[in-house]
Amino acid sequence: MIAADRIAACNAPLADVHARELEAALATASRLGADPEDVIGELARFSVAAPSWALGTGGTRFGRFPAGGEPRTLEEKIDDVAALNALTGANRTISLHVPWDDPPDADAVRGHAADRDVTFDAMNSNTFQDNPATTDGGKVSYKFGSFAHTDAAVREAAVAHNLRCIELGDQLGSRALSIWLGDGANHPGQADFRGQFERVVEGLRRVHDHLPDGWVLFTEHKPFEPAFYATVNQDWGSSLLLAQAAGERARCLVDLGHHLPGANIEQIVSRLAMVGRLGGFHFNDSKYGDDDLTSGSVTPYQLFLIVCELVSAGDGRMPDLAYMLDQSANVKDPLEDLLQSTEAIHVALAQALLVDRPGLAVAQRDNDPAMAEEVLHAAFRSDVRPLVAEARRRNGAALRPLRAFRDLAYRRERIAERGESAVSTGL
Amino acid sequence: MIAADRIAACNAPLADVHARELEAALATASRLGADPEDVIGELARFSVAAPSWALGTGGTRFGRFPAGGEPRTLEEKIDDVAALNALTGANRTISLHVPWDDPPDADAVRGHAADRDVTFDAMNSNTFQDNPATTDGGKVSYKFGSFAHTDAAVREAAVAHNLRCIELGDQLGSRALSIWLGDGANHPGQADFRGQFERVVEGLRRVHDHLPDGWVLFTEHKPFEPAFYATVNQDWGSSLLLAQAAGERARCLVDLGHHLPGANIEQIVSRLAMVGRLGGFHFNDSKYGDDDLTSGSVTPYQLFLIVCELVSAGDGRMPDLAYMLDQSANVKDPLEDLLQSTEAIHVALAQALLVDRPGLAVAQRDNDPAMAEEVLHAAFRSDVRPLVAEARRRNGAALRPLRAFRDLAYRRERIAERGESAVSTGL
Amino acid sequence: MIAADRIAACNAPLADVHARELEAALATASRLGADPEDVIGELARFSVAAPSWALGTGGTRFGRFPAGGEPRTLEEKIDDVAALNALTGANRTISLHVPWDDPPDADAVRGHAADRDVTFDAMNSNTFQDNPATTDGGKVSYKFGSFAHTDAAVREAAVAHNLRCIELGDQLGSRALSIWLGDGANHPGQADFRGQFERVVEGLRRVHDHLPDGWVLFTEHKPFEPAFYATVNQDWGSSLLLAQAAGERARCLVDLGHHLPGANIEQIVSRLAMVGRLGGFHFNDSKYGDDDLTSGSVTPYQLFLIVCELVSAGDGRMPDLAYMLDQSANVKDPLEDLLQSTEAIHVALAQALLVDRPGLAVAQRDNDPAMAEEVLHAAFRSDVRPLVAEARRRNGAALRPLRAFRDLAYRRERIAERGESAVSTGL
Amino acid sequence: MIAADRIAACNAPLADVHARELEAALATASRLGADPEDVIGELARFSVAAPSWALGTGGTRFGRFPAGGEPRTLEEKIDDVAALNALTGANRTISLHVPWDDPPDADAVRGHAADRDVTFDAMNSNTFQDNPATTDGGKVSYKFGSFAHTDAAVREAAVAHNLRCIELGDQLGSRALSIWLGDGANHPGQADFRGQFERVVEGLRRVHDHLPDGWVLFTEHKPFEPAFYATVNQDWGSSLLLAQAAGERARCLVDLGHHLPGANIEQIVSRLAMVGRLGGFHFNDSKYGDDDLTSGSVTPYQLFLIVCELVSAGDGRMPDLAYMLDQSANVKDPLEDLLQSTEAIHVALAQALLVDRPGLAVAQRDNDPAMAEEVLHAAFRSDVRPLVAEARRRNGAALRPLRAFRDLAYRRERIAERGESAVSTGL
Repeated sequence: MIAADRIAACNAPLADVHARELEAALATASRLGADPEDVIGELARFSVAAPSWALGTGGTRFGRFPAGGEPRTLEEKIDDVAALNALTGANRTISLHVPWDDPPDADAVRGHAADRDVTFDAMNSNTFQDNPATTDGGKVSYKFGSFAHTDAAVREAAVAHNLRCIELGDQLGSRALSIWLGDGANHPGQADFRGQFERVVEGLRRVHDHLPDGWVLFTEHKPFEPAFYATVNQDWGSSLLLAQAAGERARCLVDLGHHLPGANIEQIVSRLAMVGRLGGFHFNDSKYGDDDLTSGSVTPYQLFLIVCELVSAGDGRMPDLAYMLDQSANVKDPLEDLLQSTEAIHVALAQALLVDRPGLAVAQRDNDPAMAEEVLHAAFRSDVRPLVAEARRRNGAALRPLRAFRDLAYRRERIAERGESAVSTGL
Repeated sequence: MIAADRIAACNAPLADVHARELEAALATASRLGADPEDVIGELARFSVAAPSWALGTGGTRFGRFPAGGEPRTLEEKIDDVAALNALTGANRTISLHVPWDDPPDADAVRGHAADRDVTFDAMNSNTFQDNPATTDGGKVSYKFGSFAHTDAAVREAAVAHNLRCIELGDQLGSRALSIWLGDGANHPGQADFRGQFERVVEGLRRVHDHLPDGWVLFTEHKPFEPAFYATVNQDWGSSLLLAQAAGERARCLVDLGHHLPGANIEQIVSRLAMVGRLGGFHFNDSKYGDDDLTSGSVTPYQLFLIVCELVSAGDGRMPDLAYMLDQSANVKDPLEDLLQSTEAIHVALAQALLVDRPGLAVAQRDNDPAMAEEVLHAAFRSDVRPLVAEARRRNGAALRPLRAFRDLAYRRERIAERGESAVSTGL
Repeated sequence: MIAADRIAACNAPLADVHARELEAALATASRLGADPEDVIGELARFSVAAPSWALGTGGTRFGRFPAGGEPRTLEEKIDDVAALNALTGANRTISLHVPWDDPPDADAVRGHAADRDVTFDAMNSNTFQDNPATTDGGKVSYKFGSFAHTDAAVREAAVAHNLRCIELGDQLGSRALSIWLGDGANHPGQADFRGQFERVVEGLRRVHDHLPDGWVLFTEHKPFEPAFYATVNQDWGSSLLLAQAAGERARCLVDLGHHLPGANIEQIVSRLAMVGRLGGFHFNDSKYGDDDLTSGSVTPYQLFLIVCELVSAGDGRMPDLAYMLDQSANVKDPLEDLLQSTEAIHVALAQALLVDRPGLAVAQRDNDPAMAEEVLHAAFRSDVRPLVAEARRRNGAALRPLRAFRDLAYRRERIAERGESAVSTGL
Repeated sequence: MIAADRIAACNAPLADVHARELEAALATASRLGADPEDVIGELARFSVAAPSWALGTGGTRFGRFPAGGEPRTLEEKIDDVAALNALTGANRTISLHVPWDDPPDADAVRGHAADRDVTFDAMNSNTFQDNPATTDGGKVSYKFGSFAHTDAAVREAAVAHNLRCIELGDQLGSRALSIWLGDGANHPGQADFRGQFERVVEGLRRVHDHLPDGWVLFTEHKPFEPAFYATVNQDWGSSLLLAQAAGERARCLVDLGHHLPGANIEQIVSRLAMVGRLGGFHFNDSKYGDDDLTSGSVTPYQLFLIVCELVSAGDGRMPDLAYMLDQSANVKDPLEDLLQSTEAIHVALAQALLVDRPGLAVAQRDNDPAMAEEVLHAAFRSDVRPLVAEARRRNGAALRPLRAFRDLAYRRERIAERGESAVSTGL
C-alpha cells in the first residue's frame, strides 16, 4: 500500500543526518563490546505480528470513539499491515481473530496477503463472546464459560470453534493457535475451581490432538477481566500446568498486561523459558491492568529487562517465538500506536543486544549489584535509535516511521477511501 | 408491580420461624447494649437508591450476555425498582443516567413513579461517551475529555449537558447531580495535569452556580478506567479540592470500587466526613478494580467497617447522604444482584448498630487493640439477619427477598411480557 | 501452666449462657443440613501450631516495642504454648526456628514439652540472617543468598544448617522441615534468574535426600521482602516447580501474607491440592504485604473461603496438613494475638463445615451464582461461636479464651516471673 | 576527604573521550531546541542532600548484613558526604536524623562540616522508635503513636522532641524540619481515625508555631509500614490537610516509595505544586512498597516524568525545594548506592531539560498523544550522560563517579580506618 519509492522519498532528506548519527551509534556499540553489524542484523531480522483487531479504534466498557478510515474488511486489514510493515520493516505478519475474521475464501485472502508480502501468524479463537458462528448458531452461550463450562454441549461448541480456527489457519499458512479464555467466576462460590480446571485441560487436550504437523498451541493467562473474582488460567503457574497437561506442543504465551500488580514479568519469562514452555508474547504496556497501551510507553525499562531475558534465553539472539503486538488504540491512531510500539520494542532489543553479557555474568558471580546496574545502564542509557533506523533502512523501511506515516498522509487517504465512520470489527 | 398480598403470602409460612429467630436476635442486641427497637427502626428507615442502568445485564469490553426480560423503557425500569422495593423495603428511589434516560415527558414519568411510591435520587450526567443528545448533535466529541478538554466548545457542551440534567432532575423531584468524569489521559505527556484540573474546576463552578435551591453536587473520583495513565479526579484528595473549588454545595461521592489496591476506604470516609464534604456513596464490591460486583460479596468485613464509620459520623445513625447501589450484573439476574446487595448493606448496618461504641471508645483510649477487635467481632459475628428481616417485614417487604423473587416468578413474567432479547439502555 | 481447675473456674459462671446459645447454634447447624456433633467433633480435632518466635513482641525495621513477661528460654516458650492450649484446646504443638531455638539438650526439651502435652510441629531453618551457628562460624555470609548463592561454600553451609535442623527435629519428634528462603535480588541485573533457581533446586534435593522416614519438606513462596526486586521462590508456580524437582516428599506451604495484591489465594490452595503438593499453611492476615496480622482480622471472608477449599480438598474435613500461626504481635500481647487468631480460624472452620456442599454443587452445576452466594452466606452469617466454644469446652479449654487469659492474669504473673524487659529471641 | 587533585587524576585519562562525547550531546541538545549551556548550568546547580542514615548498610526486619568501613560518628558521616560530593558535585548537604544524630557540640559539628563545604539540610525527627532522648527518659512510649497518641504526656514528649530538633538544626544552619510519623493502627477498631487526625493537627500546629524565621515544616505521607492497617498521614490528601491546618509554612514532602500500587506520582507532584504546598522530595525507587532502592533503578521513566513535572512547576528549572536521597543500601555499598542515585536523578533532569516544552504544549493542546510521546521520547532516548558528566566536571567532580570511587579505593581506606565491624547508627 505504500510503495518503496514513497518511503525512499521520505528517507532521502534524512540520509545525511542518519549517516552521522549512525556512525556515533556504531562506535557506541563497539565500545560496549558488541559487533555493530550483528546488532543491526538481529534488529533487521526481528518481526512482530500485528493483530487484525488492533487496526481499528479500541475502547472500554464505557465507550469507544472511532477514528475515521478504519479497515472495513480483512483485506483492508491486511493492506494496513502491509503499510505498517512498509514503514517499520518489522511487522511482516498478521494475526487473525476468529470469528471477527472469518473469510469465506481463505485462498483468496492468502493470495491478497502474499501479494503484499504479509503472512499469517498465530490464529486466535474467541469463546468469550457469543456469536452465531461459534455458538452452534446460538444453541449455546459462553456466558458461564467455554472449555470450563459445566454443560458438555458448550464445551463441544468451544472445541469445535477452535478446530475451525485451526482449519482456517492451516489454509492461510498459519502454524499456531492462541487460546485465551475468559472462563472463571465473578462471585465466590460460583465455580468449583478444580472442576473448571480439569474441564479446561480436557478441552485443550482435544484441540492439541488435532494440531496439524508443525503447529503449536498457546495458552494465555490473565488474572482478571472479564472474570472479576477468579479466572481459570489466572497466572503462569496455571498456564504451565495447562500446557503440560495439554501436550507436547503446547506452550505458554505471556501478555505483558496480564499480571498482578508488582509481578516480576522478566522472571516469569525466565521460568517459562527454563522449563521449555515459553511460546510467545503479546506486547503492550500498562499501569493498572490489561490497559493495552503502547508498548514501552509506561515502563520502558521493564520492557528492556524482559527483552534481555529473551536475548539471554536465545543466547544472544531473540528466540524464535510468536511475537505479537496486542494493544487497544483508544485515543491514538491505531497505526501510529503500532508504529510506536514496534519502535519501542526495537529500541529495547537494540539496548538488550548492547548489554555486555560477559561483564554482567561476572558482576552476578561476584555479587556486585552496583556493577551489574552499570552494565545494564551502559546499554539502556545509550542512544540506539540510529541502529534501529539503520535496520529499518536495510529492510527498505522508513528512517522515521511516524513522520513518514504523517507525511504520506496514509490516514487521510484511507478516510477518503473508507469513510469517516468505517468500523473495524472486534472489541 | 408486586402487590402487597403476594409478599404477605410469601411471608406467611415463614412467620413462626422468623418470630423465633427474631427473639434470639433481639436478645443478642440487648446483650450487646443496643436498644433492639432502635436498631430495627434504623434498619427500616434506611434506603439505598437503585440506578436505572443496573436493571439490565452489564458487561465488559469483551462482551455482554443479556438475560431476558430486561426493562425496555424508563417506565419499566421504574417498575423494576418498585418491585425491588416491594421485596426489600429499602430501595425507595431510582437514580437516572442521562441521556440513557431522557424522558420526553418528565411529568408523566414522575407520575408513573409516584404511583409506585418511587422517587428520584441523584441525577447522573454522561460526558464519557458520545451521544448526539450530549455533543451538540455531534458537533463535538468527548474522546479527549469533557470538562477538561482543551477546546472550549467541548467544555461548553459538557456544561450544557449537565445543566440539562439538572433541569430534568428538577422536574422529576431530584435534589442532586452526580458528576463522574472519564477525563484524563492514556499516555504520559498526553495532558497537562494542571491545565486539565483547572478546566474541570471552572466547569464544576459553572454547574454549581446553576444548582436550584436545595440541590447538591457530587464529584466522584476514580483512579483509572477509562483513562489508563492518569485521571483528573483520581482520588479523594483531588475530589476534595474539586468540591472545595466548585462551591459550598459540592460534596464528594465515594464509590467503593474506585480506589487503588490497599486503599483504606473507611479512613477516607472518615476524612471526608471530618471536613464536611462527604456527600454520597456508590455501593459495590471489587477484588481488582471497578469490578462493580454485588455489595459485600468479596469483602463483607470492609463493608461493615465502612458502615461503622458512617454510623460514627452520624453519631449512631446513618447520616443523610445519597446512597446508591452501583453494580454491573454480568452473570447474575440484575434484580437478584440488587436484592443481595441491599441485604448485604442492611446486614452490615445492623452489625454496625450493634457495635458497643462506648466500649470501643474505651479500648481506643486505652490502646487495647485486642479488646477493640473483640468489640467489633462481637457485633460482626452475631447473626443479625432476623433484625434485618423484621425491618423489612415492618416495611411490608419480604422476609426472604431472593426466595420471594423466585417464588413469585418475577423474571419469568417479565420475559413473557418484555421478551427474551429486550436490551436495557446503558453500558 | 494453667491448671484445668482454673479454666473450669472461668467456665463455670458462663455455663448456663453457653448451654442456651449452644442449643440455638445446634439448631442452626441442623437446619443447614450439618450433623452438629460432626461439626463439633471436627472443631475439637483441629489444632494449629504456635511458632516459637510469635510468643514475643514483633516489630518492623523501624522499631520494636517489647511488652513485658516474654519467654526467655525455649522452655518458657513451651510453657506459653501450653498455656495457650489450655485456653483454646487447639494449639497442641509448637514450631521451632533454628538457631533462634537451638537447645543443647533436645531430650530434656522434649520431656519438658511432653509434661505439658505439647509436641513439635515443623522445624524452620534460617538462612536469611547471619548467625555463627549457621554460617560455619562466620566463614560465610547469607547477604547474597543461601541455596541460591553463587559461592558453593555458602550453599554448603546452608545445606548443613538444614540438615542440622532435621537432626534436631528428629530428636524432638518433629516430622517436617519448612524452608523459607530470602534469596533473590534487590536490583535488576543483580542475579541470573535461572542460575539462582537451579542452585536452589540442587540444595533442596540434597536436603530432601536426607529426610528421615516419615518426614516431609515444605517450600514456602513469597513475592518480596527481604528481596525487593526479585525472589527465587516468588509464587506458587515456582514453589511447585521447586517441590516437584526436590522430590516425592516435598510439598508447598502457603503463607496467607505471601501473595501479590489481588491474588486469589483460595484458588491457589485448590491448585496445589489438585496436583497433590499442598503441604501446609501459615495463617495470618494482611492488607498490604507480609503484615503478619491476626488471622481473620482484616479479611475474615477470605479466610472462610480458604478454609472452604481446605474442607473441600479434605472431602468435608480439614486435611492433615501442617497448620501454623505465623504472626507478628507488634502492638498486641503476643498470646492474645494467638488466642484471637486461633478463634478466628476456628470460626472460619465452623462456618465452612456448615456450608451446604451438595447445595453449592448444584448451584455451581446450574450456573446460579446468586444461589451459590446464598449458600455461602447462609453459613458465614450464622453465629457459630457457640459451636467453637463447645469444642473448646470438650477439650477442657476455656469458653471465652481472651476473657480467661485476662481474668487469670497470665501476663501479669509472667511479668512478675520473667521481668518487664525479657526479650524473646527472634525477629 | 577526597582531594581535588585525586579527582583530577581520575578525570585526566577520560578527558578526550569526554570531549568527543560531549560534543555529540551538545549537538543533540541544540537539535532538540535546548540551550546546551543552560542545561549544563542547571545540572551543575542541582544538589540533593544525603541523609546521614543512608551512609551505613540498611536492612529489613529479617536482618542486616553490614559492610565494613561504615561511619562511626556524625563527623565521619559528614566526611562521607564530603567524599560523595567530591565525586558527584551534587550532594552538598547532609540531612540529620535525631536522635540517631545528636551532637553534644553543635558548633563543632557545624565547623567540621563547613571545613568540608557541607551544610545542613532538613532535620528529621523520630517518634517512631523509643529512645530515652525522645521519650522523656523512658517515661513515655511511642508504641501506640506520638502526635496521635491518646495520652497527652506522649504527645507532649513528641512535641518537645521536635522542638529539640529545631533547636539543634538552628544551631547547625538548617532551615527545615521533616516530620514523618509512624502513627496509625495495625488493627481495625484500634484507633479513632478522626481523633488521631485532630491530635496530629494540634501537634503540628504547636511545632509550626515554634519555627524560627526562615524555617519551613514538611509533613510526609506514607500508606503503610510500620502501621499495617491504617496510617494517619496515609496519602497526599491527608498530608495536604495536615499542612494546611499546621500553618503557612507547612509543606508536603513526597517520598517516591510512599504510595499505593499504581499511584500516579507525577500527577500528585503537579497537584501539590498547584496548591502551593509542595515542599520537598525523598528520592528512591521501589517495586512493591517502601523498598528504598537506588533512585531510577526500577522505574527510570517514572523518575523522568516526575522530574518533568518539577521542571514544569519551576518553569524550566528545578524549583527550590528540599531534595534528599532516602535509600536503604541493603546489598550495595552505601556510597555507591548514593552515587548511582545521584547520577540517575541527574540523568532524569538532563532528559527533562531537553524536553521540547513548547512542542509538548502544542501536542497537548491538539490532543495528539502520539506526538506528545514522541516529544518525551526524543529527550528520554537521547544519551545525556555527557551533559551530566560535564556538569560534574565544572563542579570539580568526577567524570565517572563510580569508577573513581573504586579506583580511589575509598571504601578500602575507610575499612582500614574505621574497621570491618563499624556500625552506623540508624535503621
